[in-house]
Amino acid sequence: MNKENLNKNEMKKVAIGVDIGGTNTAIGVVDDLGNVMVKDNIETPSHGDIDRFIDDLAIAIRELIHSVTLMNPASEIMGIGIGAPNGNYYTGTIDYAPNLSFRGVVHLVKLLKLKFPEYKAIALTNDANAAAIGEMIYGGAKGMKNFVMYTLGTGVGTGIVVNGDLVYGHDGFAGECGHTVLIPDGRMCGCGTPGHLEAYCSAPGMKRTAFELMVKYNATDSLLANKSFLELDSKAIFDAAEKGDKVANEVFELTGKWLGQGLADTVHYLSPEAIFLFGGPTAAGDYIFRPTLESMNHHLLPIWKNKIKILPSQLKPGDAAIVGASALVYKELEK
Amino acid sequence: MNKENLNKNEMKKVAIGVDIGGTNTAIGVVDDLGNVMVKDNIETPSHGDIDRFIDDLAIAIRELIHSVTLMNPASEIMGIGIGAPNGNYYTGTIDYAPNLSFRGVVHLVKLLKLKFPEYKAIALTNDANAAAIGEMIYGGAKGMKNFVMYTLGTGVGTGIVVNGDLVYGHDGFAGECGHTVLIPDGRMCGCGTPGHLEAYCSAPGMKRTAFELMVKYNATDSLLANKSFLELDSKAIFDAAEKGDKVANEVFELTGKWLGQGLADTVHYLSPEAIFLFGGPTAAGDYIFRPTLESMNHHLLPIWKNKIKILPSQLKPGDAAIVGASALVYKELEK
Repeated sequence: MNKENLNKNEMKKVAIGVDIGGTNTAIGVVDDLGNVMVKDNIETPSHGDIDRFIDDLAIAIRELIHSVTLMNPASEIMGIGIGAPNGNYYTGTIDYAPNLSFRGVVHLVKLLKLKFPEYKAIALTNDANAAAIGEMIYGGAKGMKNFVMYTLGTGVGTGIVVNGDLVYGHDGFAGECGHTVLIPDGRMCGCGTPGHLEAYCSAPGMKRTAFELMVKYNATDSLLANKSFLELDSKAIFDAAEKGDKVANEVFELTGKWLGQGLADTVHYLSPEAIFLFGGPTAAGDYIFRPTLESMNHHLLPIWKNKIKILPSQLKPGDAAIVGASALVYKELEK
Repeated sequence: MNKENLNKNEMKKVAIGVDIGGTNTAIGVVDDLGNVMVKDNIETPSHGDIDRFIDDLAIAIRELIHSVTLMNPASEIMGIGIGAPNGNYYTGTIDYAPNLSFRGVVHLVKLLKLKFPEYKAIALTNDANAAAIGEMIYGGAKGMKNFVMYTLGTGVGTGIVVNGDLVYGHDGFAGECGHTVLIPDGRMCGCGTPGHLEAYCSAPGMKRTAFELMVKYNATDSLLANKSFLELDSKAIFDAAEKGDKVANEVFELTGKWLGQGLADTVHYLSPEAIFLFGGPTAAGDYIFRPTLESMNHHLLPIWKNKIKILPSQLKPGDAAIVGASALVYKELEK
């Protein structure tokens, strides 16, 4: 394929995607269809030294670009997109990210621009926003002007697209729908406030629900009863549900009921064409999508009932963070 | 002033605002500072005859234009903006409005364009969206790119502005935040679903809270105890609160607590610069603003605590619907 492209003497557009996580930073070169061509990992430092991290990151990026250019000399690098916790699109900074070792405000985009002055588009946002842009550029939201992305994982992140643009809000941090109140004075959320959607609909939220139900029914016969609070995860709950486990099935019913309530709120705010779900718990397919859709429709005003789609993300699970981040580049070039 | 303008031979921009309510349609000519120069009322028909209504409306508009032109021959009519329940900006139609006698979908903008082909800008939306645009064009949100308007009245309406534009969503009906769930399985909302914010934070919601508290405390000594469920309104609750009535004061504390929870959700979705409150209950000033702000800050993630303003609308109560509708004209001309 590369050879063929080369023969045609066609430039092939690619973009760099960087996903900065708590312990690991993944970097990939992504083609214009959203496929990761090559990728690499470096440590996210625990020492807080941003300059050393930028040096390491720049070296890793240069090496990947080199190998892509070897594969296809006609590759045209469009820019670098970065997803990071508390990544601020407006300022290009990572601001007080609780899970990263960097102190205060880190001028990531500015520092990367010094390393890569040749690229016009270097941009940063948080991972859920990056996923939403990835869905819009490469995935199931192509051509959609109004949609919302929910990423269900350790937390619940959201990216909101209105009139074809990501909603960043006044300060760059819009789209924290996981921290809206689902049940007043309910379960404690990781952020320290009770009752948030994230405390119910994230993967750990599902685990909490499983234990809540085992407590309620004293369900020593559940397939989940032999797992510790540390061990149990959403994959195990899915496996048990498929085997007919009552507790596991009820976890999905309840999670769907709660998530559907939250998604109905989202529709009442934004009236999107569709809501995309991404992340581990969505691997359960209909176990989670069916009760979520039922609950959402139950809560919707008549004008929206049975009209709003809930769709699985089309981004590949393993690469989604890199792919999403790389998509930022194309949004940036639109400006 | 008119004479002076005339002497200067300056064109003075004015816009027509139309507010279609359940029984009454208000029409006004609004100057570019948001002042109503002349206004009139016609009946909103109960007979469902849209053609006759359009005839009446066109005559009333022509008469108002005539009188404004007499006042100032240099008046330049920029267009007509209409606020109506279930008004759809995209299609220019009123769709299945439960409180109007028109059946199904009414092509209001199309019909008005036939009457007024000379105006480029004729546009329609719902009343809360119109109020938000009014706030942006003439009021306290001038220069703001991201804000949300809450109108507290018989219901709770909202208008969302992102990047300087009203959020209409996929189908034109975005911004129904009054119908998000505040308390699951709580009070029945007018829409037939339990627990919505509107059932707590509208004027009738405050009345329901007052009776709930009188029941709780068996408060025969409350200044509100001699009013029937039909009679009691938010003005009476305010008057009683000012006289130190315990029940009335607690109504404001609870309404603020609930509204603040909802506004925190709004911030987590959209990260606005400010949230504006409009409507009867806001006349109570600090009685409602203080507990709302406290509750909102209590619920906000640390990055937003004490950073988001809750502001009273700068639109004059009596004319706000007309003024808001007229502002649509200027947004339309921007395109």
